Formats: sequence, C-alpha cells, structure tokens
Amino acid sequence: MTLKVEQFLKSKLLDTPFLVVDLDVIAEKYLTLHKLLPKARIYYAVKANPEPEILRLLVKLGANFDAASIGEIEQCLAVSARPEQISYGSTLKKARDIARAYQLGVKLYSFDSWGELEKLSVHAPGSRVCCRLLIETQSAEWTLARKFGCAWDMAFDLLLHSRTLGLEPYGVAFHVGSQQTDPTQWNEPIHQVALLFSKLAAQGIDLQVMNLGGGFPAQYQSPIPSEEVYAEAIQTAISHHFGDNPPQVMLEPGRFLVADAGTIQSEVVSIAKKSYTDDQRWVFLDVGKFNGLMETLDECIKYRIRTPYDGSAVGSVVLAGPTCDSADILYERAGYKLPLSLQIGDRIDILSTGAYTHTYSSVGFNGIPPLKVYCI
Amino acid sequence: MTLKVEQFLKSKLLDTPFLVVDLDVIAEKYLTLHKLLPKARIYYAVKANPEPEILRLLVKLGANFDAASIGEIEQCLAVSARPEQISYGSTLKKARDIARAYQLGVKLYSFDSWGELEKLSVHAPGSRVCCRLLIETQSAEWTLARKFGCAWDMAFDLLLHSRTLGLEPYGVAFHVGSQQTDPTQWNEPIHQVALLFSKLAAQGIDLQVMNLGGGFPAQYQSPIPSEEVYAEAIQTAISHHFGDNPPQVMLEPGRFLVADAGTIQSEVVSIAKKSYTDDQRWVFLDVGKFNGLMETLDECIKYRIRTPYDGSAVGSVVLAGPTCDSADILYERAGYKLPLSLQIGDRIDILSTGAYTHTYSSVGFNGIPPLKVYCI
Repeated sequence: MTLKVEQFLKSKLLDTPFLVVDLDVIAEKYLTLHKLLPKARIYYAVKANPEPEILRLLVKLGANFDAASIGEIEQCLAVSARPEQISYGSTLKKARDIARAYQLGVKLYSFDSWGELEKLSVHAPGSRVCCRLLIETQSAEWTLARKFGCAWDMAFDLLLHSRTLGLEPYGVAFHVGSQQTDPTQWNEPIHQVALLFSKLAAQGIDLQVMNLGGGFPAQYQSPIPSEEVYAEAIQTAISHHFGDNPPQVMLEPGRFLVADAGTIQSEVVSIAKKSYTDDQRWVFLDVGKFNGLMETLDECIKYRIRTPYDGSAVGSVVLAGPTCDSADILYERAGYKLPLSLQIGDRIDILSTGAYTHTYSSVGFNGIPPLKVYCI
Repeated sequence: MTLKVEQFLKSKLLDTPFLVVDLDVIAEKYLTLHKLLPKARIYYAVKANPEPEILRLLVKLGANFDAASIGEIEQCLAVSARPEQISYGSTLKKARDIARAYQLGVKLYSFDSWGELEKLSVHAPGSRVCCRLLIETQSAEWTLARKFGCAWDMAFDLLLHSRTLGLEPYGVAFHVGSQQTDPTQWNEPIHQVALLFSKLAAQGIDLQVMNLGGGFPAQYQSPIPSEEVYAEAIQTAISHHFGDNPPQVMLEPGRFLVADAGTIQSEVVSIAKKSYTDDQRWVFLDVGKFNGLMETLDECIKYRIRTPYDGSAVGSVVLAGPTCDSADILYERAGYKLPLSLQIGDRIDILSTGAYTHTYSSVGFNGIPPLKVYCI
C-alpha cells in the first residue's frame, strides 16, 4: 500500500466497502514495462479495470487498448483513445458488434474459428486479423486455457484462408494464463508461433505481430519473480526462436498494471463460532464474491490482508462475504489466519485488489450495492 | 414456457440477452403454496428476484418478505409492504443497518451467534428474534450448509440469553438448502426444532414460530416431486414431532415462486471446434456466468434449453458465456447436447430462469451490460 493510499484511508472514514486506486502506481508499472520491453506495443486489457480515470491516464502515457466488447471500445473512445490504438481482442463477437467497431474505425481483430473469420470478412473487410492459438501452459493462478484459441494446424488454415476472404493476415496471439508465476511458460508458445510464421511465409504470407497476451502477475500472497525476469525470459525466447528477424510484439497486461495499485477497505460484519467445539472462527466481511472478490472462486487468488492488529497473536479463520449465499465464502482451505483481537466493526484492508474486482460486482445481489471506486 | 411468454417472444425481436418474467406464474405458485399449507406464513425471499413488479404483486397477494439486507428492506417498503410484513432474515447485519431497520419499523430478526445477538439487543431492543440452527442435509442442488446457523446447544443458550438481553425469543429457523429435491429432508431438522422448543419451554420460554426456510425446487433438468408431496412431508413431520401443539410456521420460498416464471432469451454468438479432431462443438452464448447464469457455478443448476431445431439430430456441446474469462463456461461435464443445425445468430431460450439470475449480473464485466428484465 502506498503512502498516498494510507493517507487517503486515514483522511476520512468512508462507508465500506470500497476500492481505492493509486494512479501513480499504474503509471509506474506502465513505464517499467515499457522500459523493459521498449519495442513491444502495450495494449491495456481494459476488462481488468475500465475506470475512466485509469483509461485516461493510459491514453496520456501512450498505451494502446485490448477491448473485450463493443462496450469497452466505446469506453476507450470516450476518453479520446484513437481507434488505431484499439484491438478488438475478444474472439467472441456478434456480427453487429463487429460492424459497429469497424464503423468506429477499429481495424485490428482477434479470432480463433471459421465462424468468427467469416463474420469479420463480411463486417470488417480488409481488417488486420490475429489468430489466437490454443496452448497448454502451467503455473497460472487463473487459467485461460481451453475456452479460447484453436489448434496449430487449424490456425495455419485459418490465417491462410483469411487472405482469400479479403482480410489481412496480421499475426498470432496466445495467452499463458492470468497471474502466470512461471516466466518460462512463454517459451514454448513463442516456438509454436515462430513455426507458424515460417510455414505461412512459405505460402507468401508475412505475418507482422506476435501477441504475447497478458499473464504478468500481481503481488498476492505468494512471492513472484520480478518484471526483469519476465522480460528477460521473453526476450531470450524471441531471440532463440526468431533469430535476427523478430516480429512486432504486442503485450496485453491488465492485472500487472492495475492490481497492485488497488486496496479494498472492508468492515468486519460478524465474527462467530458455529459450535462450542469449533476451533475456527468465521469472519464475515462486507465485501465478498458478489461485490468485488469474485477471483476468490475456488480460492484461486489469495489476497494479502492487513488488520489493525498485525503482529499480534493469530488464529485460523474461515473468511466469508456478506450475502446469504453459501458460495460467498472467500477462503476456507487456504490457511488464512487473522489476529485473535479482531472485532466486529473493525476495518481491514485487502491489498492488490485493483484488477478484476469491482467490475465483477453484481448489480445488487442480496440488495447490496456494487463496490465503489475512488481513483486518487 | 407459458403462452403469454411465447407470444411476448414472438411479438418483437428485442436485443438479447434478456429475462422475461410471467407474473401470472408467480401468482399461481404463491396461491398453490398458500392452499397447500394454509396456516403457514409465507415470507418471499426477496433476493431471488427483487424486481419491483414482483414485489408489488406479492404485496397485493398478502405475502410477507424475507429481506437479506437493509437494501432489500427499503425495496419492500418502496412498494408499500408494511414493516410488520418484513423479516430481516440475514444473520449478517451491520449495527447501523439493524438500527436503520428498527427505525423503519422492522421488529423480526434472525441471528446465529453471540455477536449478532448483542448487536440486536443494542440496536433493536425488544424485537422478536429467531435463532438459525445449523443442520446437515442432503440432496440440495445449491447447498446452504456451513455458512449459516449454529449448533443445537449454542442455539439453546443464545435463545435463553436473548431474553436476558431484553429481546423476545421468538423462534427457530433452519434451511434445508436451495433446490432441495428430497421432501423428507425437513423431517430431522423439525425434530431438532421440537426438542429445542420443549427444552426452552422448561425454562419458561415459549417460542412461537418455526421458520422452515426455503428449498422448494424449480423445474430444471431433473424431475422433481410435486408441491403436494412437499406439503404432505412437512405436515407429517410437524404432527409427528409437535403433536397437537404445532408452532406457527414460516416459509421463505424464493426460487419456488419465481424461477419457473422466467425465461432468458439468448443469441448464439459463436460456434467453434478447437481442433480438427475435436468431437465437441463449443457453443458461445451472449449470456453467461457474469450476466445472469451464476448458478451454473460448478454446473450446479442445470437449466432446460430450447432451440428452434428441437427434435432434430443433436451433438455434444460445451456451453460457454461471452466474456474473456475461462471461468465463464456454463456446462462442460453435464452432458448437454444441442441440435447439429444450430447456427451463429440463432436465438435459444433458457427456461426457469426467473430466480437468482439477473441480480447476480455484474455491473459491466468485459463491458457487457447487466441482464435486462421484462415483467409481463
């Protein structure tokens, strides 16, 4: 947590729960990434946190944008991003959304199937298209495998076919999974991409870009390698597989840029034991799966938590959210311990919650309003 | 699907996805339940679907309301429910929300721990309180065990103590789990409640109500017993355990009243195979976990699906939602099959989706707006 955030939290008692985002941290992360991989074009994954103030900052810094929907494209344009800065990166697009994006000036699209390619040829003629490759990776805390991408030989056929359809075969995309803690996971996919580049070159198709997706991690409970280690691993893999003729690289960081910039402040609603023999306390917060902490699903993302009593004696807890839904349990098996002196009404801080939190908030499940956000 | 809904869907092509709710079905379900268990007081679980038109209808029919939060209490009052009709049924309540509810005239509260009881004694003095019992049940498709309730001996102590704290020990609540497909699951908890009534009577405390919670099912894929079977099983259990002196019964149906009244219409965004050897199609809809179908989590709730080609040859599918999140897969292991002739752009209907759907919608994850609702 930065000093700026600490001062904000001290300055006045705002109604919990809320998310506070330090824009300076986002700028710093962006500039770090830009410095480490200066030739790469950075496309911010808007879905991680689409707050207008964040998008505006990134426009100012010269970022590009990876949009998951026509809604996100409009959000980017609303803060004066130019259409050339936007990639319509979702492989799931309705025909009318493609038509609308094309009309708005977006000319770069991802796809991973015959059906999507046909829609693009009709509604976005002449556009640049990137095929998403289905890859198998490990070590991602929030895996993205299976749902997106297609097999290597199908990707080859699709890219070849795209030219026939009047589109510009532009590149290959993949994603090693979100919160990827192993920097070597980019190596094998880059190898696959290089093979695809070379096989297509033999057919007269010169692909331009390799989209390495997102995956750079945030600082949750477990230690993560530094940005330098990731940049180094990626550079090495590119040199190894592409030699002297590397492609233009696209990056789609989301979590990496915004997660560590955010802190959720929450109030302890209740503390209970279920029986006299229970050795665990249940600690119920006013934030849960359905108003910000969806990524605790299956206890995937393990946030760091600060309390007013850190350093004092702790005991095991089950941490749960405020709704009447039993799915709204945050951590039960992850081994969380909290101070024994924690009391109902205390405030706690949940760190690195700037990404994939408030946008998952339900509109009002259990009559509980969505998580509020303050950008400072 | 009722004729009224079919006509609504035919009358004009509204932008998908949306939920249409037939209010007549809700009225019919309410009257059926009222007829089968005429002495029971029905508290609608507002969280299942808090649309004002639904609440207004239920006020007109004489229902009471089970509110999960101060927000839901305000929603009920906004449609002219009287405070005496409202039970603040969540066992997780902030002190200031209790104070606000009390000020608004709500005098019936649930609790399950010492901490909650103390808050109630301070902020809702003299109110009627029901203790929620932790019970173990089976056969619920959406289990509610573990998170709520306390053990029997603790419930006894808490109810005894509530009188000392100036509250009115009023009753005992339990919940057999949502979408409970086995009507005999109420029997043992009713037995436990009867024992609690009798042990507290020996201490001079005459509890008034037994709150049987919700659990009555909706018509998803698997067959379910009729309402009559549930009513019969419950009546029998009450007679058996309470004899000639049955308590006032409270019911908290949510899903049962509204689920079957709703239909979600969705468009097929994409159909794809991931590789040439794939024997399954992926069918991507414009509705998914984060804009209405959260209860497909772990493939718990299996909705019935209608397509324009029902009756023709089918093939296995993985059904997935529209977001870039791999958690947004609806059914992969549940064995769904859809017509081979299904095409991109087709509309399909997802049945019995009137409960626990649009309120779970995210505010805008992936730039996708929340599910629209039409009550007819």
